[in-house]
Amino acid sequence: MTERVREILSWYAGNSPGVLSNLARMLNHGTLAGTGKMVILPVDQGFEHGPARSFAPNPPGYDPHYHFELGLEAGCNAYAAPLGFLEAGAADFAGEIPLILKLNNSDSLLSEGDPCPAVTGSVGDALRLGCSAVGFTIYPGSGMRNDMLEEIRSISEEAKAVGIPTVIWSYPRGGAITKDGETAIDVVAYAAQIACQLGAHIVKVKPPTSFLEQDAAKKVYEAERIPIEKLSDRVKHVVQSSFNGRRIVIFSGGAKGSDDKIFDEVRGIRDGGGFGSIIGRNSFQRPREEALKFLSTVMGIYRGDIP
Amino acid sequence: MTERVREILSWYAGNSPGVLSNLARMLNHGTLAGTGKMVILPVDQGFEHGPARSFAPNPPGYDPHYHFELGLEAGCNAYAAPLGFLEAGAADFAGEIPLILKLNNSDSLLSEGDPCPAVTGSVGDALRLGCSAVGFTIYPGSGMRNDMLEEIRSISEEAKAVGIPTVIWSYPRGGAITKDGETAIDVVAYAAQIACQLGAHIVKVKPPTSFLEQDAAKKVYEAERIPIEKLSDRVKHVVQSSFNGRRIVIFSGGAKGSDDKIFDEVRGIRDGGGFGSIIGRNSFQRPREEALKFLSTVMGIYRGDIP
Amino acid sequence: MTERVREILSWYAGNSPGVLSNLARMLNHGTLAGTGKMVILPVDQGFEHGPARSFAPNPPGYDPHYHFELGLEAGCNAYAAPLGFLEAGAADFAGEIPLILKLNNSDSLLSEGDPCPAVTGSVGDALRLGCSAVGFTIYPGSGMRNDMLEEIRSISEEAKAVGIPTVIWSYPRGGAITKDGETAIDVVAYAAQIACQLGAHIVKVKPPTSFLEQDAAKKVYEAERIPIEKLSDRVKHVVQSSFNGRRIVIFSGGAKGSDDKIFDEVRGIRDGGGFGSIIGRNSFQRPREEALKFLSTVMGIYRGDIP
Amino acid sequence: MTERVREILSWYAGNSPGVLSNLARMLNHGTLAGTGKMVILPVDQGFEHGPARSFAPNPPGYDPHYHFELGLEAGCNAYAAPLGFLEAGAADFAGEIPLILKLNNSDSLLSEGDPCPAVTGSVGDALRLGCSAVGFTIYPGSGMRNDMLEEIRSISEEAKAVGIPTVIWSYPRGGAITKDGETAIDVVAYAAQIACQLGAHIVKVKPPTSFLEQDAAKKVYEAERIPIEKLSDRVKHVVQSSFNGRRIVIFSGGAKGSDDKIFDEVRGIRDGGGFGSIIGRNSFQRPREEALKFLSTVMGIYRGDIP
Amino acid sequence: MTERVREILSWYAGNSPGVLSNLARMLNHGTLAGTGKMVILPVDQGFEHGPARSFAPNPPGYDPHYHFELGLEAGCNAYAAPLGFLEAGAADFAGEIPLILKLNNSDSLLSEGDPCPAVTGSVGDALRLGCSAVGFTIYPGSGMRNDMLEEIRSISEEAKAVGIPTVIWSYPRGGAITKDGETAIDVVAYAAQIACQLGAHIVKVKPPTSFLEQDAAKKVYEAERIPIEKLSDRVKHVVQSSFNGRRIVIFSGGAKGSDDKIFDEVRGIRDGGGFGSIIGRNSFQRPREEALKFLSTVMGIYRGDIP
Repeated sequence: MTERVREILSWYAGNSPGVLSNLARMLNHGTLAGTGKMVILPVDQGFEHGPARSFAPNPPGYDPHYHFELGLEAGCNAYAAPLGFLEAGAADFAGEIPLILKLNNSDSLLSEGDPCPAVTGSVGDALRLGCSAVGFTIYPGSGMRNDMLEEIRSISEEAKAVGIPTVIWSYPRGGAITKDGETAIDVVAYAAQIACQLGAHIVKVKPPTSFLEQDAAKKVYEAERIPIEKLSDRVKHVVQSSFNGRRIVIFSGGAKGSDDKIFDEVRGIRDGGGFGSIIGRNSFQRPREEALKFLSTVMGIYRGDIP
Repeated sequence: MTERVREILSWYAGNSPGVLSNLARMLNHGTLAGTGKMVILPVDQGFEHGPARSFAPNPPGYDPHYHFELGLEAGCNAYAAPLGFLEAGAADFAGEIPLILKLNNSDSLLSEGDPCPAVTGSVGDALRLGCSAVGFTIYPGSGMRNDMLEEIRSISEEAKAVGIPTVIWSYPRGGAITKDGETAIDVVAYAAQIACQLGAHIVKVKPPTSFLEQDAAKKVYEAERIPIEKLSDRVKHVVQSSFNGRRIVIFSGGAKGSDDKIFDEVRGIRDGGGFGSIIGRNSFQRPREEALKFLSTVMGIYRGDIP
Repeated sequence: MTERVREILSWYAGNSPGVLSNLARMLNHGTLAGTGKMVILPVDQGFEHGPARSFAPNPPGYDPHYHFELGLEAGCNAYAAPLGFLEAGAADFAGEIPLILKLNNSDSLLSEGDPCPAVTGSVGDALRLGCSAVGFTIYPGSGMRNDMLEEIRSISEEAKAVGIPTVIWSYPRGGAITKDGETAIDVVAYAAQIACQLGAHIVKVKPPTSFLEQDAAKKVYEAERIPIEKLSDRVKHVVQSSFNGRRIVIFSGGAKGSDDKIFDEVRGIRDGGGFGSIIGRNSFQRPREEALKFLSTVMGIYRGDIP
Repeated sequence: MTERVREILSWYAGNSPGVLSNLARMLNHGTLAGTGKMVILPVDQGFEHGPARSFAPNPPGYDPHYHFELGLEAGCNAYAAPLGFLEAGAADFAGEIPLILKLNNSDSLLSEGDPCPAVTGSVGDALRLGCSAVGFTIYPGSGMRNDMLEEIRSISEEAKAVGIPTVIWSYPRGGAITKDGETAIDVVAYAAQIACQLGAHIVKVKPPTSFLEQDAAKKVYEAERIPIEKLSDRVKHVVQSSFNGRRIVIFSGGAKGSDDKIFDEVRGIRDGGGFGSIIGRNSFQRPREEALKFLSTVMGIYRGDIP
Repeated sequence: MTERVREILSWYAGNSPGVLSNLARMLNHGTLAGTGKMVILPVDQGFEHGPARSFAPNPPGYDPHYHFELGLEAGCNAYAAPLGFLEAGAADFAGEIPLILKLNNSDSLLSEGDPCPAVTGSVGDALRLGCSAVGFTIYPGSGMRNDMLEEIRSISEEAKAVGIPTVIWSYPRGGAITKDGETAIDVVAYAAQIACQLGAHIVKVKPPTSFLEQDAAKKVYEAERIPIEKLSDRVKHVVQSSFNGRRIVIFSGGAKGSDDKIFDEVRGIRDGGGFGSIIGRNSFQRPREEALKFLSTVMGIYRGDIP
């Protein structure tokens, strides 16, 4: 147990030994073990975008075992997926890599102005499958947000009672928020704050842009001269907005893009004090060897081996 | 226990012995026992279309005992029906044929833009009636889809806890999907994926056409040159979309059609690696002897006795 | 225990001895005891139409005891009423006549396009009051139908677990169904089928007319030349649609009409193989002596003493 | 225990000794003890109309203790109020006067076309506070009526199981009912019937006018020549509509009016066989001594000491 | 235990020793211990307005520990915050300052005409974190008010059963209430009354203006000449409306304003018999030393050390 991991766990004082153990399990697994940084492999795109859009670019990805193996070989801290994908491999790979059961999911056969994912798994499922955490998406800004917030409230309380930490994907969207606003720095920082206030152990947000969405917030950012020009500054602000760094906040990898652009983004996250990345499509939509190399670079940046 | 059945069961590692036993019971019953192929007799049309439209063409079908006998004599792997039909024969035919209790149903006295079946049975009912599985319909694309997904989530968790596998009928429909889109290959593959991600043990979809419904999917099918011209190719793609073949996926028989057309369809399913058919109206809407002969041909094609 | 009652009970094989005993209790009570025919006295009009419209024509009917006495003296198989009416006499008449607790009710102070009764009693109430069955109304065709179907699903499961049979009043109505369609033969047969599929032990429908409501059904009735001209033929078809006669199906008596018309209707029900009548307003809205005479004639027709 | 109280309790045969004891407690308390008549003090106006509109005319009424004392000194059979008001005195006045916990309440900060009160207390609260009954308001005619009916169904079943009787305030209102219709004789009689059918032990309605609201009812009132000209006749009809007098039905006192008018109304209730009054604003919105004198007159009329 | 605290506790007779102990804990903590006055530090603005708008003016406030320390050093009676903020310090500051867990929260990413906060914590969470009370916001006047009232009903009953008092933030808003009406004296007094009737132990309202919102109330205020010109008079009226002073009612501090204005407001609250203040933004949005001085002055006014 490194000093850094002990320090991180100290922020979660008051949580049960079960919750702390599972947090430690994720922090101490894989290439980044003990560094306090995390790279998580999430594969819910089959549900969210459909199988061909997700896996045709790299067909071995149709097979649920592929992702367990990829996460394991790449040295990811954890592998996150919906119920079906985990059920299809949790026994075969039992104990090999920490698992995060994603408890709600949306599909893209229908899109609604006020989106709300369906709850598709339970804390009981997470226990049954030997998971180290549960994941849950909220859409602040959606007219359905109260449903999501109340679902995660209940799930989170149940999870804490059985030693399972909660990871909240906090993605503002819905009628009240513009497309640019979804990644605006004020909105992303707010999304992180909401997830923390809901009792999340780990928060996932999108890398923020320098756009400011809400007038009332804009005034404050300008008046207080909060630096938001560089990504590292914005990440720093999001970390600050996550209880002054007392909660682990990680950033999504987004759609497939050029590697250099992603590596730069990872540098920005690292330099701003972010805790890591959760990278799906950029990992599993390319051949395995390329993916391993790609993830190795990402982790190298987080370790500091790569500047 | 054949090697093939052992192989299929191995995909369900992590499931309880009860669930595995019930899967084995269905795979090892009837004409196709041990082959890994399945032909299931479903009779929910009385509920879905009304009694006369369902049974007047072959009046013995009004009697619930008829269908137990038909499934049994024809050597089907299982017989699936709503609560009432199973209650009216489960004691009389106890232990003679695996039963699937269909837990939700729609009627056609009212049709709605965002359809949602009513839940009409429970896991407790399935246990009481000695069933080997529960069945549930979801309509991805309907504005009510979250209700269905959350119902099956709960049912499925309860069923797994008592050793009952789940069969999901995944039929996209609703305002967001065109009539042609309901059987489009991208949509059917997506429907299969959703059912698998929900933790279904067996997935039922409609035989897909080569139509492509969603623009975002179309781009990928074309860019990745996914073969979808022949039914066997499309079935192969659906099987791939069902966790790369790690989940049993079967295909509905559709409305009454010419026998040759259906046999060709069955050949396509077989050649594409599909696991079988679930054939209602084409079975029970013709005289018993004809139905037996018809089903015998279907099974012969799946066994490979008939090319 | 007559052969006929034994035969009827045999259709319910698989039900608990408690459910079978309560069915037998109703079949073996009163003037028609042992014949397999039933005449039930239902008095929910106070709730459905208000007290004056229901009881002013025969003021003793304001008193809940009156109906217990009427059902008892007339030799009805059972007396059905909402919670309040049964509570007001169940102790005074304990064990004297089988009771059916009507578990949902509508009033006519407000009428809605998609009607749904309020649930006003429970299985626990039925047990507390010593009832032999619970009754429940569904409105297939109403946009609220799923609520009703899911309520009765739950109630029915609970009732079966404690030995209480279920009687379903299946009355199609709502925006999707025309006024004539509510008693159309295709719709009534469908309504009976739905009730049976929901697991009802006894089904109550309205006497059907020869009107055909739905185009898809009309085609089949005409193609298969299903006889629907005479009431007895239509009743036969409804009985057939009730699991080929394996479920008890009875017919409502409707608004107050001329006695001869009603007796003819009863003859049609009898000749078509219907199991009996449930006659409210025509019983309790006339003086007691007249009512007894009227019901005696109805039962005579069912017994065959009166041609 | 007087003969009259024994007679009234006999109508509730089948209820538990606990329920009967609490009914007896109310019937045997205060000035009207043993007469079978009741005058209840209700104070929910603070919630329904706000504090100043309720208590400014007689400021001691701001204090919850005032109403316990008023009910006690005036010799009322019971004191009815929402949770907060009872909690603020139930310990101080324990055992001194029977209490009725009003379990749902509306405020007048918002008025809706289809009104529905909020549930603000529970049967558990009633037990904790030593209450003799629970009270509940329904608005037949409101589009939300099913919610209210199903709430009281559940509350009433729970209350009966722990020996607590139910008082239903049955006030038709909502889009389907005109302002005059709210107190129309046909509507009030119907409201009383509904409350009785729901299993209420005591029913509270408004004093009815001779207006007839519904056409279908009007025909019957005219055809059957039901007398509705005098208040005593209308009360008689409401009593008849309350299970022919087998349920206690009491009448609200309405807004503050001239004393003579109220005393005349009480005479009408008495002469029609009504069981009493529930008088709030006319009691607590005047100085204590005046209120005591006023209530003394009301009770005198019911006792017959005052003609 | 001072006489004043004993007196206050006597108003809560009938509550469990657990509830009384927790009330006493808050009344006996900090600078105002034993005086019967309270100053509470609430920090839910991170959730309600976002992190930058809340904490950028005084960046140490991003850290949840800051607020525990501020409340402690300033000698506040209690510190109130949402789940996340309390979880992030409850173990570190265990037993040092009474905590109030705020159980529902709104964010400002979406504003709705009929607002309703999301429930974000539970009574179980409050117990787990060692809290002395739970807090809950209601919006009387909102079309969603029944949801809130029924949530707090259930929470409050559960809390009382485990010895936890309830604090209700009663803030009228929604389509039915004008902006000025939200702080109108009639509306604020009504809001206090509703909270008391719901069984709150402590009520929080906004300082009222002399505006009168509702016509029906205005007539009474004028007719009864209720003094509402001075803040102290209005506070007196709100205290009177809170069960004649038998419930603790405290006032919010509002947005950041000039200190003198706030001190004057505190004087008005004190002189009107109000029980104290709950001051968030004016406390934590300025440097720690300034905040301590500011709060010291506020408490001095309440103690009477400062006129």
